[in-house]
Amino acid sequence: MAKVIANMSMSLDGFIADTADGIDNLFGWMGNGEIEVPTAVEWATFRMSPASAAYMKEALENAGALITGRHLYDITSGWGGKHPLGVPVFVVTHRLDAEAPSDAFTFAGNVAEAVAEAKKAAGDRNVVVASAKIAQQCLDAGLLDAIHVDLVPVLLGSGVRWFENLAKSPVRLGDPVVIEGHGVTHLAYEVQR
Amino acid sequence: MAKVIANMSMSLDGFIADTADGIDNLFGWMGNGEIEVPTAVEWATFRMSPASAAYMKEALENAGALITGRHLYDITSGWGGKHPLGVPVFVVTHRLDAEAPSDAFTFAGNVAEAVAEAKKAAGDRNVVVASAKIAQQCLDAGLLDAIHVDLVPVLLGSGVRWFENLAKSPVRLGDPVVIEGHGVTHLAYEVQR
Repeated sequence: MAKVIANMSMSLDGFIADTADGIDNLFGWMGNGEIEVPTAVEWATFRMSPASAAYMKEALENAGALITGRHLYDITSGWGGKHPLGVPVFVVTHRLDAEAPSDAFTFAGNVAEAVAEAKKAAGDRNVVVASAKIAQQCLDAGLLDAIHVDLVPVLLGSGVRWFENLAKSPVRLGDPVVIEGHGVTHLAYEVQR
Repeated sequence: MAKVIANMSMSLDGFIADTADGIDNLFGWMGNGEIEVPTAVEWATFRMSPASAAYMKEALENAGALITGRHLYDITSGWGGKHPLGVPVFVVTHRLDAEAPSDAFTFAGNVAEAVAEAKKAAGDRNVVVASAKIAQQCLDAGLLDAIHVDLVPVLLGSGVRWFENLAKSPVRLGDPVVIEGHGVTHLAYEVQR
């Protein structure tokens, strides 16, 4: 059964990007190790600690679709037409008339629609939500099954927070599965409903 | 050599209390287990998971002094004159003329003074900083050696954040020592200078 999983790299003080959308301080763990983790695209190959590499390989294998927001899609220029995950990408946007860069991209008018379509595309694999705002909208709508935090040992002090303005709080999570990497602690939480 | 350690229970989204200073959603792990952990006072005995109990016992044994802020001191009514840690307490406050409830409490006019006095009192044991604002002031002043987060699997959505308005950022930390409890993940980070 496909799960809908929000996944982000986050600083200990809760930021998933700095004030200029920069992620330099949060993604070092993807390149600081000796194990190569190829992705679906040539321009992105990770080099991670053994623990992170095993964790990432499993996540890549289990991913069946990706949901992202328009903002991330725009600042990455639609990942040049192919996302590193190599799975169908569903972009939540109000501008449905935009032209998709390839067959792998679909525009969806809202989160519920994106989740429904992504689940269909993913089959029995997982739907990964890689956007702070979209993850929060999924959580608010009761559509999120898990939160996988790649917790980075840094305090950024300012930037873009992951979960803000929750519709219903507190949101209780289960105890996480913990994987200790280098420059990151992977914490995989299930959302309790 | 005594370390200065900031220690708080924090939600995954970075809050150490709710908007009304409430901590009900953050301290459940101190009473949800089968191992009894006595403190220095009769009114506070913890019941924790084995992992948390071992972690807490070591922290209690290694603590030689406590630094807190005036706000926490006030809302706890000075812990009735004796703090559960059973160590000398240094309260950072501008109102130095206040009457201390017992010999165990000392008022200090600023963070540097509190740290210096607490280190003297602690000897070769650690100084624990149990206040979000004071911990941040210690960090800004380069006086903090470690950050021990008791990370609670909940999203509060609002409340009092631990680290805000950092003087210098980013603040880099080492990879944490991880202890997996029940209703909490203990993450012990060293501050990198």
